[in-house]
Order: sequence, then structure tokens, then C-alpha cells
Amino acid sequence: MIRVGVNGYGTIGKRVADAVDSQPDMELVGVAKTQPNFEAHTAVERGYDMYAAIPDRAPLFAEAGVEIAGVVDELVADADIIVDCTPSGIGAENKSLYESHDTPAIFQGGEDADVAEVSFNARANFDECVGADYARVVSCNTTGLSRVIAPLEEAYGVEKVRATLVRRGGDPAQNSRGPINDILPNPIEIPSHHGPDVQTIFPNLDIDTLGLKVPATLMHVHSLNVTLESDVTAAHVRQLLEDEGRVYVIPEGLGIDGAGKLKDFALDAGRPRGDLWENCVWGESIAVEGRDMYLFQAIHQESDVIPENVDAVRAMMDAADKAESMARTDEHVGIGI
Amino acid sequence: MIRVGVNGYGTIGKRVADAVDSQPDMELVGVAKTQPNFEAHTAVERGYDMYAAIPDRAPLFAEAGVEIAGVVDELVADADIIVDCTPSGIGAENKSLYESHDTPAIFQGGEDADVAEVSFNARANFDECVGADYARVVSCNTTGLSRVIAPLEEAYGVEKVRATLVRRGGDPAQNSRGPINDILPNPIEIPSHHGPDVQTIFPNLDIDTLGLKVPATLMHVHSLNVTLESDVTAAHVRQLLEDEGRVYVIPEGLGIDGAGKLKDFALDAGRPRGDLWENCVWGESIAVEGRDMYLFQAIHQESDVIPENVDAVRAMMDAADKAESMARTDEHVGIGI
Amino acid sequence: MIRVGVNGYGTIGKRVADAVDSQPDMELVGVAKTQPNFEAHTAVERGYDMYAAIPDRAPLFAEAGVEIAGVVDELVADADIIVDCTPSGIGAENKSLYESHDTPAIFQGGEDADVAEVSFNARANFDECVGADYARVVSCNTTGLSRVIAPLEEAYGVEKVRATLVRRGGDPAQNSRGPINDILPNPIEIPSHHGPDVQTIFPNLDIDTLGLKVPATLMHVHSLNVTLESDVTAAHVRQLLEDEGRVYVIPEGLGIDGAGKLKDFALDAGRPRGDLWENCVWGESIAVEGRDMYLFQAIHQESDVIPENVDAVRAMMDAADKAESMARTDEHVGIGI
Amino acid sequence: MIRVGVNGYGTIGKRVADAVDSQPDMELVGVAKTQPNFEAHTAVERGYDMYAAIPDRAPLFAEAGVEIAGVVDELVADADIIVDCTPSGIGAENKSLYESHDTPAIFQGGEDADVAEVSFNARANFDECVGADYARVVSCNTTGLSRVIAPLEEAYGVEKVRATLVRRGGDPAQNSRGPINDILPNPIEIPSHHGPDVQTIFPNLDIDTLGLKVPATLMHVHSLNVTLESDVTAAHVRQLLEDEGRVYVIPEGLGIDGAGKLKDFALDAGRPRGDLWENCVWGESIAVEGRDMYLFQAIHQESDVIPENVDAVRAMMDAADKAESMARTDEHVGIGI
Ligand SMILES: NC(=O)c1ccc[n+]([C@@H]2O[C@H](COP(=O)([O-])OP(=O)(O)OC[C@H]3O[C@@H](n4cnc5c(N)ncnc54)[C@H](O)[C@@H]3O)[C@@H](O)[C@H]2O)c1
Ligand SMILES: NC(=O)c1ccc[n+]([C@@H]2O[C@H](COP(=O)([O-])OP(=O)(O)OC[C@H]3O[C@@H](n4cnc5c(N)ncnc54)[C@H](O)[C@@H]3O)[C@@H](O)[C@H]2O)c1
Ligand SMILES: NC(=O)c1ccc[n+]([C@@H]2O[C@H](COP(=O)([O-])OP(=O)(O)OC[C@H]3O[C@@H](n4cnc5c(N)ncnc54)[C@H](O)[C@@H]3O)[C@@H](O)[C@H]2O)c1
Ligand SMILES: NC(=O)c1ccc[n+]([C@@H]2O[C@H](COP(=O)([O-])OP(=O)(O)OC[C@H]3O[C@@H](n4cnc5c(N)ncnc54)[C@H](O)[C@@H]3O)[C@@H](O)[C@H]2O)c1
Repeated sequence: MIRVGVNGYGTIGKRVADAVDSQPDMELVGVAKTQPNFEAHTAVERGYDMYAAIPDRAPLFAEAGVEIAGVVDELVADADIIVDCTPSGIGAENKSLYESHDTPAIFQGGEDADVAEVSFNARANFDECVGADYARVVSCNTTGLSRVIAPLEEAYGVEKVRATLVRRGGDPAQNSRGPINDILPNPIEIPSHHGPDVQTIFPNLDIDTLGLKVPATLMHVHSLNVTLESDVTAAHVRQLLEDEGRVYVIPEGLGIDGAGKLKDFALDAGRPRGDLWENCVWGESIAVEGRDMYLFQAIHQESDVIPENVDAVRAMMDAADKAESMARTDEHVGIGI
Repeated sequence: MIRVGVNGYGTIGKRVADAVDSQPDMELVGVAKTQPNFEAHTAVERGYDMYAAIPDRAPLFAEAGVEIAGVVDELVADADIIVDCTPSGIGAENKSLYESHDTPAIFQGGEDADVAEVSFNARANFDECVGADYARVVSCNTTGLSRVIAPLEEAYGVEKVRATLVRRGGDPAQNSRGPINDILPNPIEIPSHHGPDVQTIFPNLDIDTLGLKVPATLMHVHSLNVTLESDVTAAHVRQLLEDEGRVYVIPEGLGIDGAGKLKDFALDAGRPRGDLWENCVWGESIAVEGRDMYLFQAIHQESDVIPENVDAVRAMMDAADKAESMARTDEHVGIGI
Repeated sequence: MIRVGVNGYGTIGKRVADAVDSQPDMELVGVAKTQPNFEAHTAVERGYDMYAAIPDRAPLFAEAGVEIAGVVDELVADADIIVDCTPSGIGAENKSLYESHDTPAIFQGGEDADVAEVSFNARANFDECVGADYARVVSCNTTGLSRVIAPLEEAYGVEKVRATLVRRGGDPAQNSRGPINDILPNPIEIPSHHGPDVQTIFPNLDIDTLGLKVPATLMHVHSLNVTLESDVTAAHVRQLLEDEGRVYVIPEGLGIDGAGKLKDFALDAGRPRGDLWENCVWGESIAVEGRDMYLFQAIHQESDVIPENVDAVRAMMDAADKAESMARTDEHVGIGI
Repeated sequence: MIRVGVNGYGTIGKRVADAVDSQPDMELVGVAKTQPNFEAHTAVERGYDMYAAIPDRAPLFAEAGVEIAGVVDELVADADIIVDCTPSGIGAENKSLYESHDTPAIFQGGEDADVAEVSFNARANFDECVGADYARVVSCNTTGLSRVIAPLEEAYGVEKVRATLVRRGGDPAQNSRGPINDILPNPIEIPSHHGPDVQTIFPNLDIDTLGLKVPATLMHVHSLNVTLESDVTAAHVRQLLEDEGRVYVIPEGLGIDGAGKLKDFALDAGRPRGDLWENCVWGESIAVEGRDMYLFQAIHQESDVIPENVDAVRAMMDAADKAESMARTDEHVGIGI
């Protein structure tokens, strides 16, 4: 049993906690939070031990009727590994805490790449993470790109990737974020920082990315172009992607024309929180012109990195090999729609 | 066992089907649909018998790999009662179908009041529906208003209701509806048609409603003013509403400041589809100035009418009295957060 | 000639500057800004003298090719009166600067009422401001409410006002503000702070306000209820409002059903920046039920306070009486659609 | 004097009318409209003769107080040339009307290419339109693409264009259009129909386009990649675009980070309706990686085709050559920011 602690229990942290909790070879030691808001109450109802991330605020939890098991220091001491799911930048600040307890830790994509010795995507570079003390699960967008680039690279060779990332302005509950009515080049500079982030996974990849931000909350949508090294057909690419466990190729005829319907589909299917852990690639969009492959994919920013965190735990603890870990994760998280 | 058929399997219909399916005293005979889209596939996975709502289109289902049990005529013939969940106006067109089979039917709030002999809200007028052949479950907004007016009327007497309904422009998957960036008086005329709709439940109520439409999809929000007939305190009103099973008074301190966080809360709590069947009243908003009571409530348009449909089935079939029916519905739907 | 300086040249400041510049009895001494962004360039093109609001940043203007006439201190020293249009809270910080130069100053509605000895709305309390050293032009919402309450109070007497303010989340260019997809009670507490703000203009008014925030940028919309002290007809109220210079009663038949069309109308009419300085009341919405008067009005947050600032200048300088000032302002700003 | 009639007086038509009215060598005979809404009133105020587009509805204009000069048939008979600005598809229906009067006509981009013998973009193919009886000014997106492709092609040669068009869901006043909270691949199929539309201007161009629709109203944003035939620097490309009269390269330092600020800039500059007739290319975004050139540009869908319509008039009437026409149009429309 790998004893896992989760530090930071927000959008990503609560999902990681659930995913860990569902794995037969893992035990969730507890979760650390800064405030006793509604998410704290749900954690308690799920039977998760709660730790105060900021010791001074521990009394607030009691006042709010949320019993705590201790403070974050104790959680870090007690766990075999910590998944840090705090906001961008806080993870790096927390690193000394993990180091002081010799507890390995996983960081999220909001941190700079140099927070850890290795950046991680299960499909693309599981083995590089084996035995690492610190790893960073790459961002939702990089995860989404890595999952399609890896099989394309293996099957056909990739000459160049050009991707326009049309990103959601904020998550559904982040009501102070905009824009309300704008389309923002973000960053304005081209290429964006997303390309170099993908290169932390594929160091030799030729990739240019362009980022935009729009007034939507449900999912990111990628407009992807990959110039391949061999001649292929769209049908062949489609089959290749359909064979990937963490890619869902949306069939024609279902009437799924956007993120709203995708989420409805996930909710109807009983997915917890309506999560879509897989890349959602529109089957009709897969096209090949010469050696240029194109597709549209929707990426559920709140959940696509969750299975990756579970696999990173096993890689770092050297608890299973890639195939075994990914299969186990998929089974117990519930991947496959 | 009451054998229930659901005609129209969209936003409301799929939820009614699930709710019926969960009741120990009901059996879901099947659901009728016009197209084999993603919702049809989920229905099949849930084990619901599928009927073609438009016989000519039956072959489309087979082509899409959705086996059908028959056409809607057979469903209506076979069921003890039909819940019609087709789009506004189609329900009225379907009435002759139900009449031709002598099958009682429940219509939704998109139909005119005169489609049925009685309009229904479980909390307010369950008994008027007992034994009826045709009833109409009032709209999401009217249901939301009725659930707070009924206890206020009983406890204090209501002199006058003034309500501004800030309505979502469309449901999350309805991506062709607007507005994108506007606040629309809708209808422009005051008072709006919502007041008279509430009067189908409370015939003698003095109520003026004002409707608006805004670019949001998650929930409606009501700004409610009720001039009471007695002097009361906000605390007393709050207690009264907390005692209502289908009203959730949002506690201070949870950090729930809008519909986004409410939905996250429901999803975290494991609610199917993140549904909020209850009126969600902000506790901090309940205020009394003189005899004027005010509050804000969020109404989940996609789900608040679901328990009402279940109760309407029992009322019409005379299968349980009000208290018994509502308790049973609440238990098996999962109301109470 | 009244020599006016504008400190803070953003959404409000640039409009105040233009309005002052257009008045025959006023001279715009100059405007002070913190950064040489696009608005600074337009100011220069309009021939406005630019002052650096933060002396240390003066070199940035030169680098950006924006010549400056001096620093804000000089502007304050040189002007007969300053209109402070800096962001909420900064105005109060600037007061000592104005005091040190014995320069009277006008603050905006983002400041607390106690920043000045008097709060101002031309229609409602012009005379109270005559000769004042410091005055605060009330916020866009309070201005909008005051303009309809004043005539209603004079003509019929007002027993009570209940207003739901459905506010835009941010101005069109404020792309970091949300919400993206939510309807937020804001503040959640009822009554909101807007009522007491209206009472700075009408001290004895009985008013309860409720605030909401939605994902729209163009205008606020008010759902207004006024219980009058006399029996009136909707037609009479409508005539009353049509007689108000700063109220535009939208005629039926123009097809103007929201803020988007209102702005298009203003732009088509050649209004600078598409500004709508007047309250825009939907004629069809004016209704009377018993002694309850209702209406919907759209308030252009970016511009409705502009004529008020011009009148406040004259009141404080004792340069014209109310009728004369308002008429002059209206003529030279271009009010009346 | 070229006598020009405008049939269809909505978003595009009213702007074409103003632009024609401003040209010294053109006379606006009148405009035809279907309904006497607010736009009809503004037309009258501008002194434009109004014609009833649907003769049966002529009396509605009189009732609304809008005097009409006749019906559309008379306008077509009287004019030397008609600019048809009716909704997509109606233009083609109107063609027989124009033919019956032997009146040349210009159609808009909502019509299929085969409505006219030639598709038109002033910068790219003015000469092909000279003397034509029927021409189609290409859509806002195709116009925006053509204006940058033409100089790139001339200066460097273009090997391939890949463009992701992030399109606004509807114009600001189109409040019934969505999506409210979604990012829609639209069309889902790749490549989209926009590429072939660009090929009506550049028949031999290798271009793949991808279309998306998002909840914004102000402008489209293009994420553009052009593989060039020669090695160039970003600085050289930038200079090339800065030399184009109908391209505005947004300078760094102005703080313009999206469409909201761009529109504010245009409004501040006194542009009628805040129109941005030029492509707005972010200077900082122009990048070259190998022979891949990238940039972001914002396209004001409501106005970028306006100067093109004016030039099309001159080309078809053989009234000026390309350089002369474009210069005259630019001067009198007011292009150049
Ligand atoms: N939300 C997404 O779309 C998304 C997707 C992929 C990766 N990420 C990354 O995941 C990380 C977490 O993001 P999120 O969206 O879950 O943020 P979040 O704000 O939803 O959650 C962060 C949680 O950490 C808590 N927290 C704050 N300071 C803390 C501290 N000092 N110690 C412990 N807990 C603290 C907060 O209270 C909150 O509960 C970031 O690096 C982010 O970039 C986010
Ligand atoms: N969505 C809401 O917010 C909401 C809330 C309360 C009440 N209602 C009411 O519920 C009813 C259903 O609304 P909805 O939102 O579920 O609509 P919907 O469009 O989501 O679903 C309607 C379903 O009926 C099917 N249908 C269409 N024509 C049919 C026919 N002739 N026979 C059988 N099925 C047919 C459609 O294919 C679709 O699956 C309407 O009266 C509506 O006003 C809707
Ligand atoms: N925008 C509205 O809708 C609106 C409506 C009515 C009233 N108001 C009020 O008007 C005031 C100004 O608001 P706004 O919307 O114009 O803000 P804004 O942010 O658009 O403009 C403020 C300007 O002040 C400048 N500034 C910042 N610090 C400064 C300083 N120390 N000295 C001088 N200038 C400084 C900023 O650079 C900016 O140009 C606030 O009190 C606000 O509450 C705003
Ligand atoms: N709005 C844009 O963003 C945009 C951009 C470029 C091109 N276009 C194209 O321009 C054309 C016009 O679009 P729009 O946005 O101006 O549409 P619109 O709806 O704003 O205006 C069309 C006008 O035509 C009138 N009309 C309708 N039927 C008519 C008829 N039979 N005869 C005469 N007038 C009639 C309508 O009343 C309306 O005033 C379309 O082909 C469109 O695709 C639009």
C-alpha cells in the first residue's frame, strides 16, 4: 500500500484524492486545506482525514464543524508521497517542507518545470520518472497535447507541430475571472510558453504553439496541426487514436458539437463530477492534407491530469511498470466511455 | 407498481426517467425519443426500453445501433401513465394520442395551463391533483416560487409578492441560444406571464413578476420580495425555510457565492448530473424590513421539477397521500444536502 | 471661464474631459494619467495637456512619445477645480493633495460618501452642492435611480422603493473581470449598500435594494418597483418620465429589446463612444398595479454620470443655477436622442 | 457621379450607405429596408431616402412615421449600381430583380461564390472585377485573410497557409445567437469552407482553415500560420504589413490586449460606430520560426468589408484604377489610425 497525502484540496486536489482513494494499491492518508469551505465539508463526508495547511487557521476548521486530524506537517511526515495541488507558485514554496521530511512529492503544471527533476506524462515518458523524488505532472494543455503526439510520433514520425490553444477563461466556479466578452491572444507573443512545456516531455520536438483565452468555462479546445514524416490517411490516424486508452474519439451521429454536450454526455454516463479524463477528439475533424494532419480536441482542464497523477505516484514509488500502472489507473478511475 | 412511460427524452425527460426508475412503487416502461443521439445511447446503457417517437424514424435508431422496443403508440398503450417531456407546444399536440389510449398524462411547464385540468406543485396543491387524468407540472420558475410562497402563506399570510426572475439564457448544452453579452428584459412588458402561472397554483395570490434573461447557463436566480401579513423576524423566516424539505438554505461560511460554486458543491456531493432539486436560498440574504421579506434563491432549471413529476404520478394514480409521496420521492431521488 | 483639471483619465475621466472641453464656460486645463497607454495617445490627439499622475513615471511618457505638460501637482495648482476620476479608494487618498492647494474637488461614486461634505445628483439636489469645496457625484446606479425617483417623489410622493440592480460584471475593456458564466447575488446580503447610497441624495427615502452581477459588459439593467403615495396611471408616469431631459423612454416599435440594440442605436445616431447619458426606460415596461409602479431601465455605467460631473462643477463654483446649468450641459454634451 | 442604391439596411448595409455617402464621386440614391425599426429612423435623420424592400409592408413605415421614397423596385431602376446587403441567401434571390433592371449589383460574403461572376478583394484582385456586372465582396474573414496573404505572396511567395479562425458568436445586437458558454468547432469538419472561399481570390493558394465559434461579439481573432517560400525576419514582415493601408499593426506599449481595448481605442479616436476597417495585427505576435510566419489578428466583422464594397463599385463602373480607388476610399472613409 502506498500511503499518499494530498496538499491543496481545490479543483485538482479533490479529484486526485478521489482517484487515489479508488486505487487498490494506494491509501489516502489525508488532505490538507487552507479553509473550511464547502469542499472541506464534502471531504469529511467522504471520510478523508483533514489537515490544516496553515496551522494558525486550524481553529477555523473546528468552528466550522470540520474536525481536523492535524496540521500539514504531520501529513507530510506520515505519507510515503505527497501530491501537491496548491495554486501556481505555492507548490515551489512547499518544496522545502517536503524535503525536510524526505517525502517525495508530485507538483502540478502551474509550477515552473525546474521545480522537479522531471516532468511527467504517463503515455509519453513514464519510465523517466521511475524512482524520482520530485516530478511535475504537466499542465492540462500539455497533457492533452502529449497524449496525441506520442502515438503520432511512434507511428509516423512528427516533423512539426503547430497548435492553437483556445483556452477557457476560468473554471466553472471561478467567478471572478474573465473575460466576459472578448477573445484574448494570451500570451500575445508567438510562440507561446506552451510549446517549451511540451518539450519538457518531448525534448526534440519541433513545436510552435499559440494561446488564446475566451469567455467559456467548460473545456479548452485545441486546433491541432501535425506535419507527419510519412504519408498516411485520416482513417489510419483515427484508428491509431481510437486505440489510445486516454483518447476518446467522438463518433459522428451522437450530435456532440461542443463542450456543453460533451459534459452532458459525461454527466448522463454517471461520470463523477462529469469529468472527462480523456482527450475528446472529434472523429469528423481528423483530416489529412498532404502530410499535414489536423484535428480538434476538447480538453477537460479540471480532470485530464488526474490519471497522470496516479501513474506518477506508481512511477516514483517504482510500484508498477507503465502498462500495468496505466491499466490499473484506468480501471479504477473509470476511464473508457 | 405504477407503470410509467416517458415521452420526450431530453433535459427533463432523462431526469424524470431516472427518478421514476429509482422509486420502489414505480416501473419505467420505457422512453420515447425522436433521434438516436448520445442521450439515446445512455438510455440504452441504463437499460431503458427505447421507443421511436416518430415511427418513420425508427430505422435511424437501428442504424445507430440503438435497439428499439417499439413506437411511441405502444409505449402509451402499455403504460398506466405518461410523463410528457417533449418541447413546449409539442405536449399539447400529443394530448390526443394519450386520450386515444385513455392513458393519463402529465405535461410540463412549457405547455399552456389549459392543456390540463390542473396545474401541480407537490408542496402547494398536491390534493387538487388526486385522481386527475391530466395535470401540468408548473415550470421551473413557478415551482421555485411556489415552494417558498406556500410555507410563507401558511405561517404568516402573504399580502403581496414581487419577484424579479433573472433567468439563464439556455441550458448548458443549448449552444445556439443567446444572449452572449446582454441583459434582456424578457418579456419587456411588466408584469410578466410568470405571475399568472404562479396563480394557477395560488389562485388568490397578489403577485407581480418581472422577467430578465442573461448570458448564463447554470441556474436561474430570483430576487424575491414578499410583503407578509404579520410581523416576523428574518431568523424566524429562515427557520421556516430550513424546515422545508425541498428548500436548501445555504449556510454562511461555505463560501458559496453563486451558481458555479453551488453546482460544484452538488457535483462534489455525488449528486447525479450535479442536480439541485431543491430551491437554493442564500441564508445571509434572508432579510425582513418592516413586513417586507427579501431573499435570493437559485433555481436549477434542469432538475427542480423532477420530484414534482414523481409526486404528480402518485397524486393522479391516488397511490399515496401528499406527505407519504413527498417523503418517498425525496428518499429515493436523494433530496437533502 | 472655469478652469477644470481631470485627475485620472480612464473610463470616466476621458468622458469628463471631453464633456468639460465642450462647455463654453469651461476650460480643460489638462488631464493626469499614470501610464502612457492608448488613452494617453488619444488625449494628446485631442489636444489635452497631459500631466504625469505619478512623477516618477514621467519619463515613461516621453519614451512613449507622449509629451507632458507637467506633473499632477502643477495641474492641481493651476486649476480652479479638479474632477477626480481615479479608481475607487484612490480619490480619498488624493484629497490631501487637493486640500494642500486649496483646490475644490469632485469625487466619483467609487469613494465612500464621507470623502466629501455632500453627494450630488443634478436633478435631485443641485442646490445642496452650491459653493461646496468637496462633492461626490454618486455612482452610475445611484444616479440612474435618483433621476426617476426625483420626479416620482415630486409628482406623486414615494412610499417605498424596491430595486433589483442587475449589474454588468465589468466594462467592455475590462477583460480580467468576471463572471464568465454565473449569476451572482452581489452582495449576498439584502438590502445592499446601494439603498443607503441613494439616501445620501434622498435622506428620508424608504428604499431597499438588491444587487446582482452577471456576465455582460454593456449596461446595467434595473428592475424597479416604486410604491407611490397616490393613485396614478401608467400613461401618466410615462408622460412624467418623457418630460425628464435625462430620461429616454424607449418607444415601442423601434425593436430595441436590450442593451446591445440600445448601444447600436446610440452608435448609429453618432453619439461619441456610443454613450447613453440618459436613463433608458422601456416604455412598454412602465406599469402600475394598485399603487405599485414598475419599470425596467438600462443604465450606461460608463457615461450616465458625465453630465452630473459637469453640473457639479457649476454648482460648486456657483456659476449657474440648476435649470441653467442642466440645460447648458445637455446642449453641449448632446443629450436628447 | 455614380448613383448607388443599398438594398438591405442592417449591420453591413448601414455602413455601406455611410461610406458611399462620404465619397465625392458617388451619390447615395437611397436604401431599402424591410422594417421601420430604429435603424430606419437613423437613416431618415441622416437624410437617406428610404425604400420599402417589401412593397406590402410600405404602410408600416408611414405608421411608424418613416416617410418612404418608394419601393425597392424603383430604387433598383433608378440606381447605376446596387449594393445588396440583405441576409445570407436573400441576395441570390434578389438577383433576378437586378437583372430585370439591367442594374449591376454587388453581393456580400454570405452568398455562395457562384452568385456572381467574380469574388472581390480590393488589395488582391481589383482588376478582375473591372467592368463586371455582378461581383461578390468576400466575407469578413476572407477579406481579413486576403489582406495579409496578398503582400506576403508578392514579397516572399506563399507555400502554405494554415489558419484557425476563432469567430465571434454573433454581432453585439444579435441577442438570440449563442453560444453562451461553449467553444464550438464550427464546422467540425476540417478543413473548413473558409479556405475555398479564400481560393476564390487566390485560386492557386494552398490553404487549410479551421473554424471555431466562441461567446464573444466584438471581433473575430485569427491565429495565422503562413509557410513562406523565402527566409525572412519577423521585423521584415512587420514592416511589410505596416506599409499596408488596410492593416493596422498594433504597437507594443499601448496596452491593447484584446478586442475590448481595440474597440475602446477606436471609439476614443472618434471612429464612427467604433469601426475598425483595418485588420488589427498585434505587432508583438508577428514571429518567424524557420519559414513559418505566425501572427494574431483581430477582424472587425461589422466593418472590414466596407471599404471593399466602395472599391468594388468603382471597379465595376470602371471609374478609377486600383490605387486611385483605394486611396480615395481610404481618405473619405477615414482609414488610418
Ligand atoms: N484548474 C485547472 O484547470 C488546472 C488544470 C491542470 C493543472 N492545474 C494546476 O493545478 C494546481 C492547482 O490548481 P487548482 O485549479 O486545483 O487550484 P484551486 O485554487 O482550485 O485549488 C488550490 C487549493 O489549494 C489551497 N491552498 C492555497 N494555498 C495553500 C497552501 N499554502 N497550502 C495548502 N493548500 C493551499 C486552496 O485553498 C485550494 O483549495 C496549479 O498548479 C494549477 O496550475 C490546474
Ligand atoms: N430545460 C428546462 O430548463 C426546463 C425546465 C422546466 C420545464 N421545462 C419544460 O419541459 C419540457 C421539455 O423541455 P426540455 O428542456 O427537456 O426540452 P429538450 O429539448 O431538452 O427535450 C425534449 C425532448 O423531446 C424530444 N422530442 C421532440 N419532439 C418530440 C415528439 N414529437 N415526441 C417525442 N419526443 C419529442 C426531443 O428530441 C428531446 O429529446 C418543456 O415543456 C419545457 O418548457 C424545461
Ligand atoms: N466605470 C464605471 O462603470 C463607473 C461608473 C460610475 C462611477 N465610476 C467611478 O469612477 C471612478 C473611476 O472609475 P473608472 O471606471 O473610470 O476607472 P478606470 O480604471 O477606467 O480609470 C481610472 C484611471 O485613473 C488612473 N489612475 C490610477 N491611479 C491613479 C492615481 N493615483 N492618480 C491619477 N490617476 C490614477 C488609471 O490609470 C486610470 O486611467 C471610480 O470611483 C469608479 O467607482 C465608474
Ligand atoms: N454582420 C457581419 O458580421 C457580416 C460581415 C461580413 C459580411 N456579412 C454579410 O453581409 C450580408 C448582410 O449581413 P448583415 O449582418 O448586415 O445582416 P443584417 O441582418 O444585420 O441586415 C440585413 C438587413 O437586410 C434586411 N432584409 C431582410 N430581407 C430583406 C429583403 N428581402 N430585401 C431587403 N432587405 C432585407 C433586414 O431587415 C436587415 O435590415 C450577409 O450576406 C452577411 O453574410 C455580414
